Amino acid sequence: MFVVVWKVFVLLIISQVHSEPMKIKSYSEQNSCDIGKLADEIASYDKVVKDIIDYVVRGPFKWKTYDELAKFVDLFGARPSGSKVLEESIDYMIKLTREEGIEHIVTEDVEVPHWVRGTEKLTMVQPRIKDIALLGLGRSISTPPNGISAEVVVVHSFDELAKIPNKEVEGKIVLYDPKFTSYGETVIYRSQGAAKAAEKGAVASLVRSIAPFSINTPHTGSQNYDEKVKKIPTAAISLEDADLIRRIYNRKEKIVLNITMSSTYDTKVSRNTLIDLKGTNYPEQLVIVSGHIDSWDVGQGAMDDGGGLFVSWAAPVILKRLNLRPKRTLRSIFWTAEELGLVGAYAYEEKHRNENNKINFIMESDEGTFAPRGLEVAGTPKARCIVAEILKLFESVNATTLVESNSPGSDITVLIQKGIPGASLHNANERYFWFHHTEGDTMNVEDRDELDLCTAFWTAVAYIIADISADIPRY
Amino acid sequence: MFVVVWKVFVLLIISQVHSEPMKIKSYSEQNSCDIGKLADEIASYDKVVKDIIDYVVRGPFKWKTYDELAKFVDLFGARPSGSKVLEESIDYMIKLTREEGIEHIVTEDVEVPHWVRGTEKLTMVQPRIKDIALLGLGRSISTPPNGISAEVVVVHSFDELAKIPNKEVEGKIVLYDPKFTSYGETVIYRSQGAAKAAEKGAVASLVRSIAPFSINTPHTGSQNYDEKVKKIPTAAISLEDADLIRRIYNRKEKIVLNITMSSTYDTKVSRNTLIDLKGTNYPEQLVIVSGHIDSWDVGQGAMDDGGGLFVSWAAPVILKRLNLRPKRTLRSIFWTAEELGLVGAYAYEEKHRNENNKINFIMESDEGTFAPRGLEVAGTPKARCIVAEILKLFESVNATTLVESNSPGSDITVLIQKGIPGASLHNANERYFWFHHTEGDTMNVEDRDELDLCTAFWTAVAYIIADISADIPRY
Repeated sequence: MFVVVWKVFVLLIISQVHSEPMKIKSYSEQNSCDIGKLADEIASYDKVVKDIIDYVVRGPFKWKTYDELAKFVDLFGARPSGSKVLEESIDYMIKLTREEGIEHIVTEDVEVPHWVRGTEKLTMVQPRIKDIALLGLGRSISTPPNGISAEVVVVHSFDELAKIPNKEVEGKIVLYDPKFTSYGETVIYRSQGAAKAAEKGAVASLVRSIAPFSINTPHTGSQNYDEKVKKIPTAAISLEDADLIRRIYNRKEKIVLNITMSSTYDTKVSRNTLIDLKGTNYPEQLVIVSGHIDSWDVGQGAMDDGGGLFVSWAAPVILKRLNLRPKRTLRSIFWTAEELGLVGAYAYEEKHRNENNKINFIMESDEGTFAPRGLEVAGTPKARCIVAEILKLFESVNATTLVESNSPGSDITVLIQKGIPGASLHNANERYFWFHHTEGDTMNVEDRDELDLCTAFWTAVAYIIADISADIPRY
Repeated sequence: MFVVVWKVFVLLIISQVHSEPMKIKSYSEQNSCDIGKLADEIASYDKVVKDIIDYVVRGPFKWKTYDELAKFVDLFGARPSGSKVLEESIDYMIKLTREEGIEHIVTEDVEVPHWVRGTEKLTMVQPRIKDIALLGLGRSISTPPNGISAEVVVVHSFDELAKIPNKEVEGKIVLYDPKFTSYGETVIYRSQGAAKAAEKGAVASLVRSIAPFSINTPHTGSQNYDEKVKKIPTAAISLEDADLIRRIYNRKEKIVLNITMSSTYDTKVSRNTLIDLKGTNYPEQLVIVSGHIDSWDVGQGAMDDGGGLFVSWAAPVILKRLNLRPKRTLRSIFWTAEELGLVGAYAYEEKHRNENNKINFIMESDEGTFAPRGLEVAGTPKARCIVAEILKLFESVNATTLVESNSPGSDITVLIQKGIPGASLHNANERYFWFHHTEGDTMNVEDRDELDLCTAFWTAVAYIIADISADIPRY
């Protein structure tokens, strides 16, 4: 009998210990937020949050984000900047939105880069013949038709390259093989690699793909030539091939590569798409949700940024369907030509510069639409306190986290730099860079239920910010 | 004060609960093993196990398995059956072994298939143009030079295909898209898919790659035509492309593919390699460790089966270095042409049929050399009890698990079917099929320290079985 009582007793203690974990302080507590009566007003939106979540997660909108995204992605596939298919996909989105009875849709022309990948082939010819998978980087120039054959110099970093005498780099191919730490820290070897290698006299440059994991997967991306330095062909190779070359290089063996790349480059006219759900009280005041509609030419642009595009498409659609008209205008923007340098966003900022003071808050999803966790927020301490208070309403979907960031998102950084408060979707995107800018960016990365959670969260957050009595303060 | 005492008390209880988990019964306990005094004899090998582990994990052999494997893989890359590079790699392994002072090395000629992949291209031409990554399956015939253009029929299973009237399959391409469950259960759609589709009048067949995860990665592998049915071209496509086609198919849209494949097929002479560390007392009695030296033509054959090759290479080398000569002969075999149908193993069994009764135990590593966990063992209950007793000595490396299997391994199943007891390496290979038969089978999959653990485990287990007084009983 004692044994039994003792066991029950132990279980009770354990369950008590487990059910009362040490409480982690919320953002509001950590930052001594005091937003006065606004907190009560925000709390009063709990019913509308529940309604939106119900409508999306259990109601008529269940799996609609995924299904519409799949139809779109399956129909168009990759939508590179300047391509005909991108324009067709924009027309499709406009039609899809009109079918929801939303009338305020405009497009704004943007001159965009049109870089078209041609033949690409990379072969190790010494010490043995081996085909190497590659993806040219955005705007890379072509090689001569028979390619460039040259010895390889492998460096971990720009510092290491700088220390090598120029004559040991001249006429060679530089391979950068930085260890992936974070995207932000490592991506400089993709974006600036060609320029820095050309400065030293290299004839081409390669970069170990900016990714933490690979199945021999090259990752493309944009890069910037230095106009003062000769342009050289530049491409990404897989982690595996970069590491193979590094091992051979460390054994002091001579490595010769032949690289052949072709491409064309001109400009075309594309369009940003602006969809407005007009505010009831302050229609000139804007809360923006956004994602980009263009993609890289590899993969299907399902994750980057089909997911962000469709949760931002869904926000006005759901509010319209639920007859929830906020006081301020909710604007959904589908940016064009993000991948070649935030081209659509820069054009928008320039065109609307006079009315940027009317943007109350700007949101973007461009880092995955996996399970939502909250927002990455730029703005004043008070702005963040208001957003943190709103996030408290999303405990049921585990999306209450506020991450401070000075430049959340990609396109919206153009406007955030001007002092507009904004946020990007904080989500469970630990595997995002496994697929980013690769042939693996497909619908298989997306999850029906996680997309629903993102859609509900995105719509409800935007609605509250567009509807509350207070503006989001700015610097 | 009470609070503090209470907390300490709770912690004590919790730590007690945690430090006394419910003990899982060992294999020996579960199966009421009684091997008498042999258990004491086996236990007396604890010192030699420790010595071998020390030598490999902390001593002069530390990281040597990885480094030698890397040198080998970097030098030769893929080693397909019938290729010149495979024969060169066999010569290299012989030289590497001779340099260790091991003299008893023989090779035995084997006629092997020589299937050479040529051009391969698959394009979805309707409802939209999309390039689809593919890998022809082993021995696939070519298409006509301009390829085959045909509509697609998508089925989950052979049962589903059987139910479709022949006239709806005739002239079409069959795509099998079984959901991956286990390799054994799903691989039939790769190995038998072409034969079953041809039976229904299909002109080509495709299979969703036999894998649980993908970054748009096609997986090749062997397949068997039915000699009574017309041979049709057959290939694997990625999970992503198969799922894309399935979604479009489910929307009742017509899908047309153009598939172009070329290949050549003849036979060549290759070699099995047999390395003997002669037994001191019963040199005619054999304990075999093995892996296959050939690989698929994609990837580098680092995992499949470079790892198994090198841990089996290391066993006699380490025993020689440590002057540990077992009573029975330890034979290390590098099988040739495993990938095209266990060709080397069948040839060995045929050639050595008269002496197969001298094989006391046969081991193979061909499912990864990740962290070792134990062995998958085929044999009589008593054989398994003896092996389980040996595995108890590997608690320090967490490799004590005995998994019962009737056909462990791949090549060795040829001999196990004849009643010879044997085992394959049980290891932490949860991601094995992410990389299997793909361009991602590279050194990046391998881990220096895990390879060391495998090498030490493999060597010590083989030594004990080759040295103990009792033979492993057989049916």
